[in-house]
Amino acid sequence: MRAVVIHDKGDVRVEDVAEPRVVQPTDALVRVVAAAVCGSDIAVLRGLSPLPRPVQSGHEFVGIVEDVGSDVTTVRPGQFVIAPFNTSDGDCANCRRGLPIACENGRLFGEFGPDGSALEGGQAEFVRVPLADTTLVVAPAPSEALLPAVLTLTDVMATGHEATMHADVRPGVAVVIVGDGAVGQCAILACRRLGAERIVVMSRDPRRQLLARRHGATDVVTARGDEGVAEIVDLLDGGSGHVIEAVGSLDSMRQAIGCARPGGRIGYMGLPWGVELPLWELFGKNLSLSGGGANVRAVVPELLPEVLDGRLDPSGVLDASFSLESAPQAFQAMDTRQCVKAVLRP
Amino acid sequence: MRAVVIHDKGDVRVEDVAEPRVVQPTDALVRVVAAAVCGSDIAVLRGLSPLPRPVQSGHEFVGIVEDVGSDVTTVRPGQFVIAPFNTSDGDCANCRRGLPIACENGRLFGEFGPDGSALEGGQAEFVRVPLADTTLVVAPAPSEALLPAVLTLTDVMATGHEATMHADVRPGVAVVIVGDGAVGQCAILACRRLGAERIVVMSRDPRRQLLARRHGATDVVTARGDEGVAEIVDLLDGGSGHVIEAVGSLDSMRQAIGCARPGGRIGYMGLPWGVELPLWELFGKNLSLSGGGANVRAVVPELLPEVLDGRLDPSGVLDASFSLESAPQAFQAMDTRQCVKAVLRP
Repeated sequence: MRAVVIHDKGDVRVEDVAEPRVVQPTDALVRVVAAAVCGSDIAVLRGLSPLPRPVQSGHEFVGIVEDVGSDVTTVRPGQFVIAPFNTSDGDCANCRRGLPIACENGRLFGEFGPDGSALEGGQAEFVRVPLADTTLVVAPAPSEALLPAVLTLTDVMATGHEATMHADVRPGVAVVIVGDGAVGQCAILACRRLGAERIVVMSRDPRRQLLARRHGATDVVTARGDEGVAEIVDLLDGGSGHVIEAVGSLDSMRQAIGCARPGGRIGYMGLPWGVELPLWELFGKNLSLSGGGANVRAVVPELLPEVLDGRLDPSGVLDASFSLESAPQAFQAMDTRQCVKAVLRP
Repeated sequence: MRAVVIHDKGDVRVEDVAEPRVVQPTDALVRVVAAAVCGSDIAVLRGLSPLPRPVQSGHEFVGIVEDVGSDVTTVRPGQFVIAPFNTSDGDCANCRRGLPIACENGRLFGEFGPDGSALEGGQAEFVRVPLADTTLVVAPAPSEALLPAVLTLTDVMATGHEATMHADVRPGVAVVIVGDGAVGQCAILACRRLGAERIVVMSRDPRRQLLARRHGATDVVTARGDEGVAEIVDLLDGGSGHVIEAVGSLDSMRQAIGCARPGGRIGYMGLPWGVELPLWELFGKNLSLSGGGANVRAVVPELLPEVLDGRLDPSGVLDASFSLESAPQAFQAMDTRQCVKAVLRP
């Protein structure tokens, strides 16, 4: 079958690889209907996270179940499924605590585990999904029109939603969102969904500003750094108690800290490659920081009904579509900011 | 009058300075009965926080009101008062939000403000207290025996208590406390007070281990670094959801991160001089971080009755007493860890 393989910094290819099959009795084999390219794929492409060896990439995918192992009971061939970006057993201490992202037996798709082995990703025609019963979420097969919105539940919409929980977003509050990428855009939707009164977004890109407004942003600040911070502090009369950091750089963290009022909460969702946070800046303002990878498996059941009936529409973040064969172009389009986020269709 | 003045790294003196008086109509003049030396004083002495010029130090003091300005209504001469380490107006947006530490018109005793002026500290015979009505807490004059316990309310006991709030300590939980100094010791007391079932403290000092046990520590881990972390993770079957960091170094923050289980909360109370926190380590475990300077003015009214009736006894952290004239020896005793915390008596 064909699959996307990231070989090294700047080197992504579409290749023939062995077709996966059910190996463990708890596995499912899924035929991929659509897979998205994640900002973290681009980070790997940029060499921010060096690879020990090439890896079959992709951790955002939906598809149709083709086959299941003998122990799989709730997922059946023919069903449409949404795959969170990591697998989880639903039964370990962390899963029982509502933290499937930290499942003791879970793995990230398209990543290397502690034993050095990779779990092949979903930017491919087929993918093996371990712990299928407790990883996959079964859903009615969506129409082509609904498919992109459903696809965002595998990562970015779930992450945007979880950001609001970390930043304690509640009805009537003012929120600042640092970052206008897919997660930032989904966070805007999540804030609006929760009834935030004021949603201030930092964005310099005119197209992304438009999307942000469409998603519910009430204010867009185009300045960055100290200037952008000063504008927001002025706009919100001292800053916000609820800030979402959706980039993952030291600059964006500093902006988040700057926009927070004393005692405020920052939800940090951007993958913080190499960020060394000056703790003094948090201490001096009594800030709280909460975040990390989203618990997609726990969040999807809550958001799915609203996505299916159109109340929640994050499809705008997937603004480019490519065939699986054109994956290198899709990666390039995201790397050069020609699009927010690309879909791959096998 | 006589007062302690820190001149520079390693240079603390007791000197004749001008006696303070009421300047603003909201001021009180307080005759100091006892003042403590703070770990942050020692940090200044060590040169961690360079001084622009010499400063009259001391932000932990209790005393008797000698005089008040014309606008002071609730504090009267002759009353015993507890001074939080910062002043607050009780009326700004931050104070109204329960955050007097971030009072927009507040100042830290013994520190320089944004305008470059210093608010003279309380390691002296007398001290001027601005915003007296909303800064000072009036209390019954304690006996000599109770005085040390009451003095801890000016900073460390309040800080230890607030740490438990940041780390979400509740009845029945297991807590890890990194640090066996005055704040760590007070945090143990605060955890016990709140009904924590297991209180694990990292300490290498046999005397401090004894004090920790007396305060309610159920386990003492003497190993540090990775070894200490491994021991605690083993002890608590994967780590704790509630960790208190009471030192302020990168090493102690790393130990706190290591001891936290996925999704856990770290209350950070140690002044993090120059600490650059590897955010990835927090992200990878979905940790929350919450802390900063304590809201002493908000906390004292809750703790004071228990201190006065002996239910809460933090006096053990003040294990050395010096005359004001011997302040340099008191600083040295703390700097060389001969004592946990020293009292100065004018």
